[in-house]
Amino acid sequence: MPGSLTMIRHAADVLLDAIDRTAAPVCVGVDPVVDRLPGATAVSSGVSPGVSSALSSAPRAEAAAAIRSFTLDVLDQVAEHVPCVKFQSACFERYGHHGVRVLAEMIAAARSRGLEVILDAKRGDIGISAEHYAVAAFGDDDSEATGARWVTVNAYLGGDGIEPFLRPGRGAFALVRTSNPGGDALQSERLADGRTVSEAVAGMVAEVGRTAVGERGFSALGAVVGATKKADVPRLRAIMPQQIFLVPGFGAQGGGVDDVKPAFDSEGRGAIVTASRSVIYAESTGSADWPQTVGEAAARLADEVGRAAGLR
Amino acid sequence: MPGSLTMIRHAADVLLDAIDRTAAPVCVGVDPVVDRLPGATAVSSGVSPGVSSALSSAPRAEAAAAIRSFTLDVLDQVAEHVPCVKFQSACFERYGHHGVRVLAEMIAAARSRGLEVILDAKRGDIGISAEHYAVAAFGDDDSEATGARWVTVNAYLGGDGIEPFLRPGRGAFALVRTSNPGGDALQSERLADGRTVSEAVAGMVAEVGRTAVGERGFSALGAVVGATKKADVPRLRAIMPQQIFLVPGFGAQGGGVDDVKPAFDSEGRGAIVTASRSVIYAESTGSADWPQTVGEAAARLADEVGRAAGLR
Repeated sequence: MPGSLTMIRHAADVLLDAIDRTAAPVCVGVDPVVDRLPGATAVSSGVSPGVSSALSSAPRAEAAAAIRSFTLDVLDQVAEHVPCVKFQSACFERYGHHGVRVLAEMIAAARSRGLEVILDAKRGDIGISAEHYAVAAFGDDDSEATGARWVTVNAYLGGDGIEPFLRPGRGAFALVRTSNPGGDALQSERLADGRTVSEAVAGMVAEVGRTAVGERGFSALGAVVGATKKADVPRLRAIMPQQIFLVPGFGAQGGGVDDVKPAFDSEGRGAIVTASRSVIYAESTGSADWPQTVGEAAARLADEVGRAAGLR
Repeated sequence: MPGSLTMIRHAADVLLDAIDRTAAPVCVGVDPVVDRLPGATAVSSGVSPGVSSALSSAPRAEAAAAIRSFTLDVLDQVAEHVPCVKFQSACFERYGHHGVRVLAEMIAAARSRGLEVILDAKRGDIGISAEHYAVAAFGDDDSEATGARWVTVNAYLGGDGIEPFLRPGRGAFALVRTSNPGGDALQSERLADGRTVSEAVAGMVAEVGRTAVGERGFSALGAVVGATKKADVPRLRAIMPQQIFLVPGFGAQGGGVDDVKPAFDSEGRGAIVTASRSVIYAESTGSADWPQTVGEAAARLADEVGRAAGLR
């Protein structure tokens, strides 16, 4: 390979390879909420023991330091079991520039541990604003080394709200069918042509994503399809054959193994299931061995979903 | 009034009063893009003269300092002419924690100049993540003194993605009909019941907003309705009688005085027109008197729209 030329690999190829390597089509959601941090983390970040619940009103710098410490422990525990983590941007943005600084550092920390990174920011803007958001998520340059590889986006503004995120070696997951109860209000509305609104969004995502398909047949534009909406999955898959499905709602939100199966193709590919609370808060008390319980929960998630997909 | 009790006024009442006071139902959009900053600003922020176009690859701290300096000049110029500014969050987030820190400082600077502040962040998430975004936008407490008073939100996830933003003394503008060309792809789709998708969103916004109506009859949940979609405005107004319309697309995006008139009621109320590039980049060259041209453009915007609404 020529000296200074860096080959930028397609984001979907990289993610699918990482899933194959681990036989774990899963992602651990890192949604650190100060009130829920184990006591031990609060201590190690300089906050008095036993007062983690008081951190919600602690200075932003202290709170950011606490979620930094917690997140590093989580990354250390899950890196050997799963190929990917998803950071909930809101959890960090809550603490202003302190939190945003920690978020960038945690994304780098995850990548240095070999983890694929999705930034769950649900951004949705157009033109130069969307380009700015892409730079914020992915970093300043097109090198593969910095920032998140993927970001979640909102498609309500149309294709011009999505395209700026499809940069070389990067990708986006567009919200198609969300797992929350209120999602039905709009997403289940029936169009005159018989499709639902979420199916119309799926059609748009399939079309925009067609321009960015990798060697393995999947697009750099994926789709968020909630595990709690299992009945909708077959039609959404038919509309979006080239989209990797990012599937939230597993675990704490009520989705089970049977709910995520339909998202995978016959070879167990094409989807990645994400779980947050059921992994990172597997041990809700302040017990000293909480990091191990996080690792065990990540291993269990990988095994359950890997089997459901037929990869194990 | 009792000593330590602070009366938190309704966000819509405060905004409508501010518009009345100035007879200017307008908002200046602050979307600082480093490549477009006047040379003078680049100089005052420590960057060599004449190289503002090179700032796009400058270190993030330097770029953030340049947009800080520019934004302060803009705020100084527009504060006497308009009641409100809208910060494009992406322009600041692009520069990571440096930019986010400047954004918080600029929101405080705008408020200290008596300006109402909308944070154009188009956030769209649910549950505790939406609550985190609300804290990020509004500040840590319910005092009226910190953070933005309003934030823009995306309604694709339903009511549970909006409600967390309707905090005491704060409000949100939900994206209903956006001004970009691609917005039609989804928003103009026709439902089986004859409504468009954006009208369905409007109905949801009207319903969620009904719980948060102020003394002047308008809700703390407003709606973004683009000036370039004039034909849709009468029906959207009929569906959303209690929503303040935030109207982008005026000026640089092609909307004119006739396009924004339908957004106002017979008394010239119920809407606020926002313009960004046509004001803050009124003088695109590096001339030394650019701040005055920004002030003049803001005064012109206020006069044109104030007359269109019948307030002048």
